[in-house]
Amino acid sequence: MLNAGDTAFIIICTALVMIMTPGLGFFYGGLGRRKNVVNNMMASIGVMGLGIVLWMVLGYSMAFGGEGFVIGSWSFEHIGHSGVAMADLLDPEAEGGSIPILVFSAFQMMFALITPAIITGSIGGRMKYKSLFIFLGLWSIIVYYPLAHMVWGSGGLLGGGWLGSLDFAGGNVVHISSGVSGLVLCLLLGKRRGYNNINYRVHNIPFVMIGMALLWFGWFGFNAGSALAAGELAGHAFMTTAVSAAAAMVSWMLIDTIKQGKPTLIGACTGVIAGLVGITPGAGFVPIYASLIIGLVVSPVCYFGITLVKKTLKIDDALDAFGCHGIGGIFGGIMTGVFAQAAIGGADGLVYGNPEQLLKQVIAILISIGVAVVGTLVCYAITRAFGPIRVAEKDESIGLDLTQHGEHAYPSFNGLD
Amino acid sequence: MLNAGDTAFIIICTALVMIMTPGLGFFYGGLGRRKNVVNNMMASIGVMGLGIVLWMVLGYSMAFGGEGFVIGSWSFEHIGHSGVAMADLLDPEAEGGSIPILVFSAFQMMFALITPAIITGSIGGRMKYKSLFIFLGLWSIIVYYPLAHMVWGSGGLLGGGWLGSLDFAGGNVVHISSGVSGLVLCLLLGKRRGYNNINYRVHNIPFVMIGMALLWFGWFGFNAGSALAAGELAGHAFMTTAVSAAAAMVSWMLIDTIKQGKPTLIGACTGVIAGLVGITPGAGFVPIYASLIIGLVVSPVCYFGITLVKKTLKIDDALDAFGCHGIGGIFGGIMTGVFAQAAIGGADGLVYGNPEQLLKQVIAILISIGVAVVGTLVCYAITRAFGPIRVAEKDESIGLDLTQHGEHAYPSFNGLD
Amino acid sequence: MLNAGDTAFIIICTALVMIMTPGLGFFYGGLGRRKNVVNNMMASIGVMGLGIVLWMVLGYSMAFGGEGFVIGSWSFEHIGHSGVAMADLLDPEAEGGSIPILVFSAFQMMFALITPAIITGSIGGRMKYKSLFIFLGLWSIIVYYPLAHMVWGSGGLLGGGWLGSLDFAGGNVVHISSGVSGLVLCLLLGKRRGYNNINYRVHNIPFVMIGMALLWFGWFGFNAGSALAAGELAGHAFMTTAVSAAAAMVSWMLIDTIKQGKPTLIGACTGVIAGLVGITPGAGFVPIYASLIIGLVVSPVCYFGITLVKKTLKIDDALDAFGCHGIGGIFGGIMTGVFAQAAIGGADGLVYGNPEQLLKQVIAILISIGVAVVGTLVCYAITRAFGPIRVAEKDESIGLDLTQHGEHAYPSFNGLD
Repeated sequence: MLNAGDTAFIIICTALVMIMTPGLGFFYGGLGRRKNVVNNMMASIGVMGLGIVLWMVLGYSMAFGGEGFVIGSWSFEHIGHSGVAMADLLDPEAEGGSIPILVFSAFQMMFALITPAIITGSIGGRMKYKSLFIFLGLWSIIVYYPLAHMVWGSGGLLGGGWLGSLDFAGGNVVHISSGVSGLVLCLLLGKRRGYNNINYRVHNIPFVMIGMALLWFGWFGFNAGSALAAGELAGHAFMTTAVSAAAAMVSWMLIDTIKQGKPTLIGACTGVIAGLVGITPGAGFVPIYASLIIGLVVSPVCYFGITLVKKTLKIDDALDAFGCHGIGGIFGGIMTGVFAQAAIGGADGLVYGNPEQLLKQVIAILISIGVAVVGTLVCYAITRAFGPIRVAEKDESIGLDLTQHGEHAYPSFNGLD
Repeated sequence: MLNAGDTAFIIICTALVMIMTPGLGFFYGGLGRRKNVVNNMMASIGVMGLGIVLWMVLGYSMAFGGEGFVIGSWSFEHIGHSGVAMADLLDPEAEGGSIPILVFSAFQMMFALITPAIITGSIGGRMKYKSLFIFLGLWSIIVYYPLAHMVWGSGGLLGGGWLGSLDFAGGNVVHISSGVSGLVLCLLLGKRRGYNNINYRVHNIPFVMIGMALLWFGWFGFNAGSALAAGELAGHAFMTTAVSAAAAMVSWMLIDTIKQGKPTLIGACTGVIAGLVGITPGAGFVPIYASLIIGLVVSPVCYFGITLVKKTLKIDDALDAFGCHGIGGIFGGIMTGVFAQAAIGGADGLVYGNPEQLLKQVIAILISIGVAVVGTLVCYAITRAFGPIRVAEKDESIGLDLTQHGEHAYPSFNGLD
Repeated sequence: MLNAGDTAFIIICTALVMIMTPGLGFFYGGLGRRKNVVNNMMASIGVMGLGIVLWMVLGYSMAFGGEGFVIGSWSFEHIGHSGVAMADLLDPEAEGGSIPILVFSAFQMMFALITPAIITGSIGGRMKYKSLFIFLGLWSIIVYYPLAHMVWGSGGLLGGGWLGSLDFAGGNVVHISSGVSGLVLCLLLGKRRGYNNINYRVHNIPFVMIGMALLWFGWFGFNAGSALAAGELAGHAFMTTAVSAAAAMVSWMLIDTIKQGKPTLIGACTGVIAGLVGITPGAGFVPIYASLIIGLVVSPVCYFGITLVKKTLKIDDALDAFGCHGIGGIFGGIMTGVFAQAAIGGADGLVYGNPEQLLKQVIAILISIGVAVVGTLVCYAITRAFGPIRVAEKDESIGLDLTQHGEHAYPSFNGLD
């Protein structure tokens, strides 16, 4: 039996998650350099086209088309969702009714777009667009679909199939996988030329803000929608998501005030993203007071993590994909093991007397990191076979907008024509 | 009996469709010239005010207030929705419950805003705002309301009343009608001065992207909401919409790469719009694999169509309203006749053994084109009676922002005041 | 019993209301001066972090945690929603089912963010950010939570507890309270230096438009969601909201045309906001024809109100928070007393033979104004105790972006770096 309320909810949540990817394009476009704004946006947008087409051809089959440990099905039997009838329900036995499989697939598909888009924040300003496009396609197949299956798929290794780790809306699948892959990729690519000598200037702070707003808006669909029904759990996940984002904004503003004497808009926006990442794995598992703690703490964790990565280790994680998503995702996964409460969903965590869950979370995080590292190396090697990945020195200096897309973001801004 | 899930769905979809019109304002504002950005945005925004007021006074009555062949009712009996009680349901007999008529009316009302706004893309940079406002009001009454009734109204000529053509979410009603009217209007107005000598520069590519993002986001409400219930069909239409948009983005990027050596952000965004237009008439009728084909093919069709219109025929369709919406809509209507499958909804098409449906689609397209051409000529003639339609040469040269609205988009961008 | 359709509706509406606050940041950021754009945006954004945290700690308890005349509960018993179980329903007895309390709380929480953000429009360009942050936190506690309880809380003074005034979605609670507080605050702070001599230039008109679009979009969630169920009343409130906004846009464009010869985009956007404010208290109480009247009249009322405040009284209500929200809210509350119809919801108003309701509306407005005035004075006095509230003359001249946040909105706009 179809539940119209649940179906309405997940369809709309899917649209909300969709808007996150262009939102990320604005976030990255605003944070990056003026000469790379089109490229930073195009990195997110292009993956929407590529990712949906790939999901049709392979993604759904691999992630949800069967019951393996690591992948669902290699059989290609679900190309274009063949074998899935329009009226097939996700859970035909559910007492209160269920949603169509197609709606579930569309919802999951949007997760498979934003995730590779996050990676692109690490490598701003130096990668050929063609290579990026190939890399992200390979990465979807080699890293994302298997990881989505392992965590959420039937019989998956990290979820119900063996480990029993908790990941409500994608701490491992989305944030750790993309953040770690971003880090590896930017190590492989090397720094932007002049990285230690140039003080890069942000391009456009209002773009960062509209990007943050669209990301936060969509994240409600992302986290609340992961309940897969319009009920108490979705409401709970909505609330923890809002609280963590807000608390992280406040604590980032506090750090900015302590460190620089003034709260900044970029800091407030970055704090929101950190808070959203931090609550993602636990949104439907931890109580509301825990979301307040997670939010307050995730900002200093990411702040000092970014400082460590960028200033101390001199790694050129240009737009902090690892600093926000990798570090925040790891922190959130651990906190889920600390604060999860079986009465809400999932299992009890450390503070509710079950330290074993914390161990499971750590194991799941380590396996996710391993998959991301190895997968990224493999994808890089294959991409490398198609030609040089890094842009020429001169092109990097001119900027990727003109050299990769032949476009100038504002061709006639200063004149009247 | 009211169905809360369906009602929730259509109310939210209505809000999503609403955001498309300002989204189009950004799309056109970004694609146009710097000196016309306020005017290009105002063309979309103004029609929201005008269109909702007109819908209240006349639109609902004419489109859905009765059972004529061509219009619903001229009786004005539904002014301000008088005669429609708050609790009246769209289909009081429906087994699973239904949505209020008012919710259906609000949903349809939003379609009646975005459609005339599309036209304004054809005539960028040369039409008096007052004349545009009058024209779009007349066009709503003379072209849009009748066409909406003919296709979707009870007893309408092109729909159930006689022909039995298929148009799920507005290929004929929205895209062909506006695209063709745009073409006729820009032929009547003539080219912008210096059309053959000036290489117009786009104003702001990030605006094009935010416009695309809002359009795609809203389009999910547009196409999935056209199922009028939160069920399997809505989920199916959501999926075909996503797939066609993505496939068209990829194929447009491919064309750009072949033709210019580089994929462009403008091309990717234009491809998305073409893919969305192409799937609109068939979203709830064709299988998912067909949406992949439609998306892949609609981009080259529009690309070469635009080249034909603009480069070869030298028609000044400034922002490609005809090139995208007219050509894409015609293509999509034909493809619906090819790929429609009765098991999904509607009727079988050519590939399912019913060539007659393809013929019906062609007839419906031709009638829609006819209505648009004749209606535009009539509206133009009436508008002309209120004074000259085209701006003076000097005003065109100064730009429409200052001459039509007394506004400069960024009065203090370069200074600090 | 949980109603999935209603729950889906209110969760999504909550996300829509959330996007209003960043939308307001763009609206104000665009309308203000170039040197204050980051500060104008940060004023809205910062309150999201602060407001959600406060709502967790105190807001929910005070507004909805009990049955007092003026506040719900001071007991802090609901900190972090302790005492509210995930499965607790808002109305467990409701025949058709209900929504979780947590979902209701999240919806109300978003109202508690946009309201203080509105105030910041009155004091653009002269208040220290630290002081603003403290002031808005205090104001939430001293003015907003009590007023929300008095109007919507169980046993509240202005609502069911005594007066029986009508306020569907926040005419008193949101618009009058914020608008009047803005006026008082800008009188206390004094004018910007050079107010009478400088002709301030707007920063960015497209920002005003994207802000308006997000506000209008979110307002559908605000007004329709206030029905707290996805039924006829939500559909009705959606329609009145759309009609009033549209009619007010048209009438503002008419005023612009009469006064300046040309309709402006800023005028159209301001008209939309005025129309939305004007219908807010009556959206679920007045018939649709009345929303057309309210929309048409609210624009001239606000237009001449703004002229009176700014030009005649020389009050520096920088971005018209009082002019739009205060005046529009008062007008809307009175109109609700005139046009309310018991058959739709609430009670009959003047034109349906019940002049007493109009009196109740006026009393509620006066009490709300009183609460706002006194509360603002108290909050100001407390904030003052933390140090000077107004920025130094030099900082005001440099601009608040650099002096309050150390940020320049477009650090590299004109160069390529």
